[in-house]
Amino acid sequence: MAPVDELLIDENPLPEGIPDRLRDQLAFVVEADRLKTVLRQSPLAAEARRENDAEHSWHLALMVVLLAEYAEEPIDVGHTLELVVLHDLVEVYAGDTPLHDTAAVAGQVARERAAADRLFAILPGEQGARVRAMWDEFEARATAEARFAKAMDRLQPILLNWMAKGGTWQRHGSTLDGVLRRTAAVADGSAQLDGVRRLLCASAARNGWLPTDREP
Amino acid sequence: MAPVDELLIDENPLPEGIPDRLRDQLAFVVEADRLKTVLRQSPLAAEARRENDAEHSWHLALMVVLLAEYAEEPIDVGHTLELVVLHDLVEVYAGDTPLHDTAAVAGQVARERAAADRLFAILPGEQGARVRAMWDEFEARATAEARFAKAMDRLQPILLNWMAKGGTWQRHGSTLDGVLRRTAAVADGSAQLDGVRRLLCASAARNGWLPTDREP
Repeated sequence: MAPVDELLIDENPLPEGIPDRLRDQLAFVVEADRLKTVLRQSPLAAEARRENDAEHSWHLALMVVLLAEYAEEPIDVGHTLELVVLHDLVEVYAGDTPLHDTAAVAGQVARERAAADRLFAILPGEQGARVRAMWDEFEARATAEARFAKAMDRLQPILLNWMAKGGTWQRHGSTLDGVLRRTAAVADGSAQLDGVRRLLCASAARNGWLPTDREP
Repeated sequence: MAPVDELLIDENPLPEGIPDRLRDQLAFVVEADRLKTVLRQSPLAAEARRENDAEHSWHLALMVVLLAEYAEEPIDVGHTLELVVLHDLVEVYAGDTPLHDTAAVAGQVARERAAADRLFAILPGEQGARVRAMWDEFEARATAEARFAKAMDRLQPILLNWMAKGGTWQRHGSTLDGVLRRTAAVADGSAQLDGVRRLLCASAARNGWLPTDREP
């Protein structure tokens, strides 16, 4: 976990006269600004730089609005939006864990749970518990909404890597088999979008943008 | 309007084998990546740089999830999330229009409508019309959801400027009166959050972070 000793809001506390509950909620809104500084591996399609978690979360939300009709099971679009808006928040303390980084993935669950304990405690108790429950729901893919949200989370970087004609696929020793295995959760959210996933990966491999050798 | 002659997807078309409807939707998802490159005036709280539209849209969505209880009228949280996710999309072609830039604001409506005509036409017809209707709803503040969404859009930069102890308030000749006038829409979404808006602006003025002279 990053050595963050104080909340951002402590750098410039809100003025007197705001009720405690609202003050805590606003402190959380400000603390969440850190998500804009957590870099992912994926390259943007529109500019030559890496994407951050806040941009990524917004992009998933847009995909939910536009692609919900492909959900494998009926979903509540609004609740699915809540899940994608919240899904990466713990990374403000836990950092991004690239799917291909086996060592980092091994410690990810414990690291993110510790971050969640700390982050969601900023909120008023019952709201913190409600937000934590939504994050747990997403992580556990416990509902149709969580499965569709996770499918977006796995499909979106594939679209970005496609646009980059390789992107992160050409680093870290990725292979077609490895990428297909690590993004298999798309199928749990949508068979049709899983077809797109397979098509993009297979075409990328055929074009030489994604190595086909087996991983060691 | 920015001179964008082709869609991002044309730089690397999707492979054969995707149904036309889904192909158009994915082209839109990729085109929307441009929102991550549209810079706003507001400074981040977590890092010394300006915010972009995608990050801003995500931040508003988080505020909707956390602050919906303060809405002046009952709102459907999921629909409000749709509105904030979509609200700035036209800026991929029309650019950001700072509230304080009177000349730019004068041409904003025409510029953004032209951008909307062009952007939403990428989507399948009936979906493009549905998304356009949501953008129109937001712009017109036609519903309780739109009024709350707009309130978030006006309150969030105030929080960021507060954290920066001035931020954009100390450029462009902003004054307390001017900022209060340009952000008055918060009151239509939430009386309680409007109280926060007024308190932050008044405290910022008292601290010397927001000039109190009248604008010329």
